[in-house]
Amino acid sequence: MIFITRKHEFCASHRLYNPNFSDEKNEATFGLCNNKNGHGHNYVLEVTLSGEVCEDTGMVFDLKELKKLTTQEIIAKVDHKNLNVDVDYLSGMIPTAENLAIKFWEILEPKITKGRLHEIKLYESERNYVVYRGGICEPTI
Amino acid sequence: MIFITRKHEFCASHRLYNPNFSDEKNEATFGLCNNKNGHGHNYVLEVTLSGEVCEDTGMVFDLKELKKLTTQEIIAKVDHKNLNVDVDYLSGMIPTAENLAIKFWEILEPKITKGRLHEIKLYESERNYVVYRGGICEPTI
Amino acid sequence: MIFITRKHEFCASHRLYNPNFSDEKNEATFGLCNNKNGHGHNYVLEVTLSGEVCEDTGMVFDLKELKKLTTQEIIAKVDHKNLNVDVDYLSGMIPTAENLAIKFWEILEPKITKGRLHEIKLYESERNYVVYRGGICEPTI
Amino acid sequence: MIFITRKHEFCASHRLYNPNFSDEKNEATFGLCNNKNGHGHNYVLEVTLSGEVCEDTGMVFDLKELKKLTTQEIIAKVDHKNLNVDVDYLSGMIPTAENLAIKFWEILEPKITKGRLHEIKLYESERNYVVYRGGICEPTI
Amino acid sequence: MIFITRKHEFCASHRLYNPNFSDEKNEATFGLCNNKNGHGHNYVLEVTLSGEVCEDTGMVFDLKELKKLTTQEIIAKVDHKNLNVDVDYLSGMIPTAENLAIKFWEILEPKITKGRLHEIKLYESERNYVVYRGGICEPTI
Amino acid sequence: MIFITRKHEFCASHRLYNPNFSDEKNEATFGLCNNKNGHGHNYVLEVTLSGEVCEDTGMVFDLKELKKLTTQEIIAKVDHKNLNVDVDYLSGMIPTAENLAIKFWEILEPKITKGRLHEIKLYESERNYVVYRGGICEPTI
Repeated sequence: MIFITRKHEFCASHRLYNPNFSDEKNEATFGLCNNKNGHGHNYVLEVTLSGEVCEDTGMVFDLKELKKLTTQEIIAKVDHKNLNVDVDYLSGMIPTAENLAIKFWEILEPKITKGRLHEIKLYESERNYVVYRGGICEPTI
Repeated sequence: MIFITRKHEFCASHRLYNPNFSDEKNEATFGLCNNKNGHGHNYVLEVTLSGEVCEDTGMVFDLKELKKLTTQEIIAKVDHKNLNVDVDYLSGMIPTAENLAIKFWEILEPKITKGRLHEIKLYESERNYVVYRGGICEPTI
Repeated sequence: MIFITRKHEFCASHRLYNPNFSDEKNEATFGLCNNKNGHGHNYVLEVTLSGEVCEDTGMVFDLKELKKLTTQEIIAKVDHKNLNVDVDYLSGMIPTAENLAIKFWEILEPKITKGRLHEIKLYESERNYVVYRGGICEPTI
Repeated sequence: MIFITRKHEFCASHRLYNPNFSDEKNEATFGLCNNKNGHGHNYVLEVTLSGEVCEDTGMVFDLKELKKLTTQEIIAKVDHKNLNVDVDYLSGMIPTAENLAIKFWEILEPKITKGRLHEIKLYESERNYVVYRGGICEPTI
Repeated sequence: MIFITRKHEFCASHRLYNPNFSDEKNEATFGLCNNKNGHGHNYVLEVTLSGEVCEDTGMVFDLKELKKLTTQEIIAKVDHKNLNVDVDYLSGMIPTAENLAIKFWEILEPKITKGRLHEIKLYESERNYVVYRGGICEPTI
Repeated sequence: MIFITRKHEFCASHRLYNPNFSDEKNEATFGLCNNKNGHGHNYVLEVTLSGEVCEDTGMVFDLKELKKLTTQEIIAKVDHKNLNVDVDYLSGMIPTAENLAIKFWEILEPKITKGRLHEIKLYESERNYVVYRGGICEPTI
């Protein structure tokens, strides 16, 4: 069992707010991130797979394939976009890093055909990041 | 003569377009950065002063003061904002990294009272940055 | 279950030695870190919480709150300090990265009211870091 | 139980190919990494130990010792080398990051006398890395 | 006058030696870098242009164009290659970082049609880099 | 003319104060850095030489030599030290980054026998750094 990770980047804008909240509650909950006209980030996305090393290739999964898959299914749809407006699969969702990571997991997980998806790590900035590992209950970051 | 630099960060969204251009020309000129609903970045701003070292303090300029000045005059106004809409001093300007750097120079330069402003360096991402040194014609980055 | 992390920094000095050891044993055990007049580091502290994502906010825990808590309880007391002398809660302790991480855990853990503290990661330099996860016996870094 | 990590670097060249594959299959499997005359990387190796903190020293393991051990047993043999040709313990092996990490584990693990080896993390570039934790079946990265 | 920079990466192998030197002299001159079977690096290349900001676009030069140019003329020819053997324009040259930077300048400089090439910065590792600015005699890094 | 740079690191403690100042003035001038028992940093030192590339070697200066020189003359004397107390050549000096950079220049400059010393860059943290280029009056950072 070994873990392999590939890092991607995208830049996007978002605004954090819940349409069911009052302005005051949105302000109290989301602070600066609730700015009406939005703000943005250079996101960093790390996708980790786990699996057995194939003896013939010395690899778990072809990283070229993983790069292609992640670029096509995720990056191409969020890079240089407004996450509240432009992305079909985020429609109706508050675009926090937590929700993005979970959604990215749901998109990639069924498409991994060799090994399995182990972790989605998403940096919103150098100071903040989230990690998601599917519905596992064990806190084994 | 010595140079001292302090690094700051802010996150903001923007859209690059010229209202006098046709949609086609905006698309051709600004590409992905012309996305109608904007996108965003974690900007990194480095402010460099030059000056003589004061014998009594071993410093050119009090970095606490420089931090306060930059935070107040620049960062507080652009952090968690939409650069096309929310910032008075950017009004009517295409918010490219080039234009931001020049504007930041114009704001800070007259407020430096000891030493002088030497350079504004602005990273839009880890892959792109601009450097501005005022109206100097010599290419001495 | 998701994990969220916030990164902080502080700079401090320390000296590693055990007052019960002879000078020779301190030298052999702690090497350069035993320098009598101390040395110092830019420490990086990452605090990770785990929890369920709240549907109404898309967040596990308000990062503004976590930042405030960590700054107040930890950073304000160690930043620009001598860890052997200036910090009440480190009194009588050899200020290794290991001991600091355990102490930071003990301070923060009871104060996390939503989700739970999952991990303290402390970099002493870019080359050395420690990870602590409370009294767990499973090595699940 | 605490985890301590030390980071090392080495630069090396390699070519990925399986002598039992046809040229076409090597090309399809390894892509650019199959370049006949090789290519290279600045590798980053992180070695993590787990253990109890010793009350007398505040440390799990003497990092000076770990540095010496890793340098002697691993770094000195791969740094500024061609991994396909120059390294005895890699002979007959496809030098993927996966295989290197497993081999480094096998070399270090029996030599750790206090605490135990928890993890080998190997970056081939800033974009790709692998993690190995021995024969454990639980995916607890 | 403003400066804009774009960062690129490539990984390659090389061996430093002068065929006119004896083995002993090559060893004494190039040390570990003279390993007969080569070694390699993840190189980082920063290309900086200088110029006036165009009022209509807020840009000096279209970075998409610069990216395309650098990728085509330089990166595509050195990435995943052996710099001693695989690269036409390096033939007969000792592939030190110094020589690479000068060669990259000679290739790009005549192709910059707006603004002008100001600087080539090439990192061989995080610890070593070179800067070249054409035949200028003034040491204005 | 080309520029080559080598990066070094050291960790040290210091206290900023002027013995001729009152406590109040020291506090007002140096703020947190005036903590009586000191604090510390992981410093990063970049030494840059300029010179002509030697045709026979493709190098300006043997980086192995530069590394040896910088380690011996500077790093060995400040690493894991208290800069106010332990370092002969800093005696009687306020150990600001500015003063350290100037002193390091004065030590290295006469010892460079091929090419010449162009720049000393010293990071006190990721947020602050200084650059010194000798007695040059032109602000050509």
